[in-house]
Amino acid sequence: MIKLGIIGATGYTGIELYRLASNHPDIAIVFATSEQYTGNHVSEVFPHIDPFADTILRSLEDEDIDQFEVDVVCFCTPDGIAMDNVGRFLDRGIKIVDVSSDFRFDDPTVYTTWYNRPHNAPKLLGSAVYGIPELNRNQIRSSLIIGNPGCYPTSVILGLAPLLKAEVIDVGQIIVDAKSGVSGAGRGLKLRNLFVEVNESITPYNIGHSHRHVGEIEQELSRLSNETPYVIFSPHLTPMSRGILATMYVRLKNNTTEDDLFALYQESYSEEPFIRLSNSRYPETRFVTSTNYCDLRVNKVEGSNVAIVTSAIDNLVKGAAGQALQNVNIMFGLDEITGLI
Amino acid sequence: MIKLGIIGATGYTGIELYRLASNHPDIAIVFATSEQYTGNHVSEVFPHIDPFADTILRSLEDEDIDQFEVDVVCFCTPDGIAMDNVGRFLDRGIKIVDVSSDFRFDDPTVYTTWYNRPHNAPKLLGSAVYGIPELNRNQIRSSLIIGNPGCYPTSVILGLAPLLKAEVIDVGQIIVDAKSGVSGAGRGLKLRNLFVEVNESITPYNIGHSHRHVGEIEQELSRLSNETPYVIFSPHLTPMSRGILATMYVRLKNNTTEDDLFALYQESYSEEPFIRLSNSRYPETRFVTSTNYCDLRVNKVEGSNVAIVTSAIDNLVKGAAGQALQNVNIMFGLDEITGLI
Amino acid sequence: MIKLGIIGATGYTGIELYRLASNHPDIAIVFATSEQYTGNHVSEVFPHIDPFADTILRSLEDEDIDQFEVDVVCFCTPDGIAMDNVGRFLDRGIKIVDVSSDFRFDDPTVYTTWYNRPHNAPKLLGSAVYGIPELNRNQIRSSLIIGNPGCYPTSVILGLAPLLKAEVIDVGQIIVDAKSGVSGAGRGLKLRNLFVEVNESITPYNIGHSHRHVGEIEQELSRLSNETPYVIFSPHLTPMSRGILATMYVRLKNNTTEDDLFALYQESYSEEPFIRLSNSRYPETRFVTSTNYCDLRVNKVEGSNVAIVTSAIDNLVKGAAGQALQNVNIMFGLDEITGLI
Amino acid sequence: MIKLGIIGATGYTGIELYRLASNHPDIAIVFATSEQYTGNHVSEVFPHIDPFADTILRSLEDEDIDQFEVDVVCFCTPDGIAMDNVGRFLDRGIKIVDVSSDFRFDDPTVYTTWYNRPHNAPKLLGSAVYGIPELNRNQIRSSLIIGNPGCYPTSVILGLAPLLKAEVIDVGQIIVDAKSGVSGAGRGLKLRNLFVEVNESITPYNIGHSHRHVGEIEQELSRLSNETPYVIFSPHLTPMSRGILATMYVRLKNNTTEDDLFALYQESYSEEPFIRLSNSRYPETRFVTSTNYCDLRVNKVEGSNVAIVTSAIDNLVKGAAGQALQNVNIMFGLDEITGLI
Repeated sequence: MIKLGIIGATGYTGIELYRLASNHPDIAIVFATSEQYTGNHVSEVFPHIDPFADTILRSLEDEDIDQFEVDVVCFCTPDGIAMDNVGRFLDRGIKIVDVSSDFRFDDPTVYTTWYNRPHNAPKLLGSAVYGIPELNRNQIRSSLIIGNPGCYPTSVILGLAPLLKAEVIDVGQIIVDAKSGVSGAGRGLKLRNLFVEVNESITPYNIGHSHRHVGEIEQELSRLSNETPYVIFSPHLTPMSRGILATMYVRLKNNTTEDDLFALYQESYSEEPFIRLSNSRYPETRFVTSTNYCDLRVNKVEGSNVAIVTSAIDNLVKGAAGQALQNVNIMFGLDEITGLI
Repeated sequence: MIKLGIIGATGYTGIELYRLASNHPDIAIVFATSEQYTGNHVSEVFPHIDPFADTILRSLEDEDIDQFEVDVVCFCTPDGIAMDNVGRFLDRGIKIVDVSSDFRFDDPTVYTTWYNRPHNAPKLLGSAVYGIPELNRNQIRSSLIIGNPGCYPTSVILGLAPLLKAEVIDVGQIIVDAKSGVSGAGRGLKLRNLFVEVNESITPYNIGHSHRHVGEIEQELSRLSNETPYVIFSPHLTPMSRGILATMYVRLKNNTTEDDLFALYQESYSEEPFIRLSNSRYPETRFVTSTNYCDLRVNKVEGSNVAIVTSAIDNLVKGAAGQALQNVNIMFGLDEITGLI
Repeated sequence: MIKLGIIGATGYTGIELYRLASNHPDIAIVFATSEQYTGNHVSEVFPHIDPFADTILRSLEDEDIDQFEVDVVCFCTPDGIAMDNVGRFLDRGIKIVDVSSDFRFDDPTVYTTWYNRPHNAPKLLGSAVYGIPELNRNQIRSSLIIGNPGCYPTSVILGLAPLLKAEVIDVGQIIVDAKSGVSGAGRGLKLRNLFVEVNESITPYNIGHSHRHVGEIEQELSRLSNETPYVIFSPHLTPMSRGILATMYVRLKNNTTEDDLFALYQESYSEEPFIRLSNSRYPETRFVTSTNYCDLRVNKVEGSNVAIVTSAIDNLVKGAAGQALQNVNIMFGLDEITGLI
Repeated sequence: MIKLGIIGATGYTGIELYRLASNHPDIAIVFATSEQYTGNHVSEVFPHIDPFADTILRSLEDEDIDQFEVDVVCFCTPDGIAMDNVGRFLDRGIKIVDVSSDFRFDDPTVYTTWYNRPHNAPKLLGSAVYGIPELNRNQIRSSLIIGNPGCYPTSVILGLAPLLKAEVIDVGQIIVDAKSGVSGAGRGLKLRNLFVEVNESITPYNIGHSHRHVGEIEQELSRLSNETPYVIFSPHLTPMSRGILATMYVRLKNNTTEDDLFALYQESYSEEPFIRLSNSRYPETRFVTSTNYCDLRVNKVEGSNVAIVTSAIDNLVKGAAGQALQNVNIMFGLDEITGLI
């Protein structure tokens, strides 16, 4: 059994990781923390947690958690917590999967550009791997720190990678129109997240080139291309609890057909257990809800040089907790789908 | 009092028109038809209709409806009905507002291209005006037939018109990513419209250059430009009853600033009672629900030549029944906002 | 024109009152307050407020508001504010409609029992009338202070009054199972009101005899009966923004038929403009949304002595702001439906 | 491996059974039928079915399905299909779990009373067991036919059984106010189930003593009592996809305390893996979504002899497909929770 500690178990991502990990046949949760609910049982905060999986929530400040034998710790904390706290675990040889943004960037100045604060552990960035298994599986296998991708970036990068690898699109002209369920905004008390404010409305926010996830998307796309990508990214808050649908508009360099494009996706993903391609139906978020799948389709627009890629994931699973477990499976040599199908 | 007949009063658009017209101080509904509910009172089908506004639903086949003194008839019928039935009313000097697609096109062959059937009243197309008051107010005033715009086209055309009129964008590279509530799909019994199929999901459909509304959008944009527009249009079914949000991506020809762009919108719309511009908040569908407003914002994307226009309407009001009444107000010389604010 | 001041205009009830009053042909809003948004325009907080109705939000502390000529002030404040602040307006001869709970009780000790604090203006309670027009229309006409009923109590009292007046039920055995949309919980930042917590769930709370509205319901029912009523009341939070449906179970004393029962309702309500009775369809909240109607049906359960009354209102309209305006119409001698149909 | 055939795999219950069974470690789905989608892969109809679980849908008419080696067949068909088709499987020694209503009644005349048609296999009713494991586990073990309980009855019977067994309530005065998500109404094309008709509304239907599930509830409650129960049952359609919440009002015969009542539930259910009791939080449907749990609470109403029981299940899991698998586990000697936690 792989012994797992969860830091920040009572946000939407944390509790999803807790739920998935407690159903995983080869993982034992040895501790879980929550600053807000320290001392409570998990089931007191989230009654849907079944009686067999219940445990007491500790504080990250609690020294007891250093007494546990642990193989891997997942951070499901707000941005900025993991970078200050991973050392304590790394020193003991414990591997890290950081579901926050702290270890997603190669370059601390890029982090600072997008997050508007200094990075407190810049030296560790070199040891971290961006945890998108479909692109970085080999490095994940041997890495000590995984920067688990953001939810939007997961849907976008998986959707565009085959086109960049094949160098068939103009990477300076990428437009992503993304729609996300409300759990992506977290469990914090914000007016914006009240039922009455969200229900029966769809709302754009931070459109253009300003959402923090743009930095992460451009970094990863730039690895797949010789040119510098520029991504226009427009997120929209959608009246549903879970799910991301990204609709991506790209300009083709040559006269590539829809069949050609589909073949590129098959080439990249035919062996991938969590990518489902279709050339006949569109991705819909309901078909990936509570799963680790990313559903993809590529369409060529007739009479133009534009292709449209649609990509659907569950923001809390493939976009966060499920991908974290997929990374744990890889890091510890398990079958990658264990506990996720 | 203007005497109004409503053909097809029991679809979502028809009943919205009925509701709005029955609250209009200068309009009297003299008859209403429904083939499905002939003989029922409106309130038997839609109990929210208040007791003061109730009437009996007739059949369009019913000869009695020719006995009523009527000033204007609105068709809220499926496509293809109005073109076969307007003659009967025009012969009696009655004006027509067709909320279906039958009288939106100048050229019957364009109609055939998008609707895949012949147009049965091609000669009348010349007498019809595309009923978007913000662009065609003068022609509406004196027209006998109004082709009331589609819901998506209303949101898109109002959103893009100032840019085309000022010739600041590349009209061959327009991308529209639109999100619509479910009432836009009508009240017919389709699996796709069941609560369980729609709830907690967002779904693209007919993306690219295939949705019927593309023809209408391109026709109207071409009037505003010397060049031939090409519009990539991607609609998405959104889990809400009402509302359309269109997010539009355009390429600027020159180095126009966001302030310049905003000024173009002010110039076009500052006198328009139903257009609300903002340069600080985004349009959200909830803020236009059950109103005849179109909320608009234009953003310039920093570091690129792309501008993003966001546009929100209620698909059943400004996108259908409200705009129909706005047209009636214009046709009969009333204050344009009567009954709509 | 009746000159209206609104205290607390930026909660869900306050803004609904603002919206309705700004559409009312005989009311002018002369000031509106909000402690949270003092200094903002209403449309900055609620962009759906149309440009013609916009005004600046003041503080209740602001002495300027005493300079306005005002006929009536409505309090849409949290419980406990009105009782401390009405004096200032009463002294100037201004009438009061309190949409909070401060003036709903005859007896300050009953207030204290249910609200767990002393009443600070007990002497004024004698001047206040419980503002449910269908029962207290005459007293409302001449009253200086209206205690506008709670949302749940409105649906329940209107639903049961004909049965109590006719003395056909056992008033000691009344069960009310009520379902409310989320706006009833207000606009405060509570975890319980987040979209993700409410969506796709229905939840009982404060069931039995503990919800504060029980005191108000029992007080009003006791006026209609010689016996002391006992009401079991179980509210449920329902995943919708607006609406209350109350399903009420009562024991009949005698062998009254369903037709007899329906006749009692017709007798009580046939002249009421905002009560809609049916003996063939059930009330549904969607049919009263954004209206001041209360839809009612009474069913006799075959093979038992139980009758079931179902009652639907919009909690923000007939359950709050609409009823407040109905009361204003009555207090100032207007046609009672003005601005509400 | 237990070999399972599913008849009617493309309704909401059928596909949920398919999904759960395909994740069950000791069950292999050997065939699945659908008259509507014969010849399609399951994943063509329900794309969320993962690639590993996909199979071709057959017709029940297809003789090929008799060639499969099968241990148990589950019927997820409309009422009236199973009774005409089980013989074919029973003749081959195959066990039956009927998720429809055909085998829930002991007495064919009771069936006829509630379903308004004759029962075509009355002799088989004697071999069938009502499949609620918490009450009938021993008979389920050795039965050839299981009549899998209805969704509402599951929530009600589990909620009331401890009170009837202890003889502490008046069984002639039971009131059940139930709220169900829309999937309970099936996947058929009915106006009533359209998104726009359901959304933002809560609706009573068949209230009193007329819903078909009353017969089933009263039959099972009568087994637990010497007296004849009479159940007033009021279902409400709620704007959510899944879940049932039943709020039940009962009259206590004696002065039983809330603690006493809770002790009765603990006595009945402390060993039950799928019953979760609480005396501090209310059941909410979201906490049982996609699980086989039934969450229960009992409250005594202070100042009265009424107790209120609240019960929450997922109508498609514990109310249908999950309970069917629980029954299969029991029938084949597996650990009862296999594949369900």
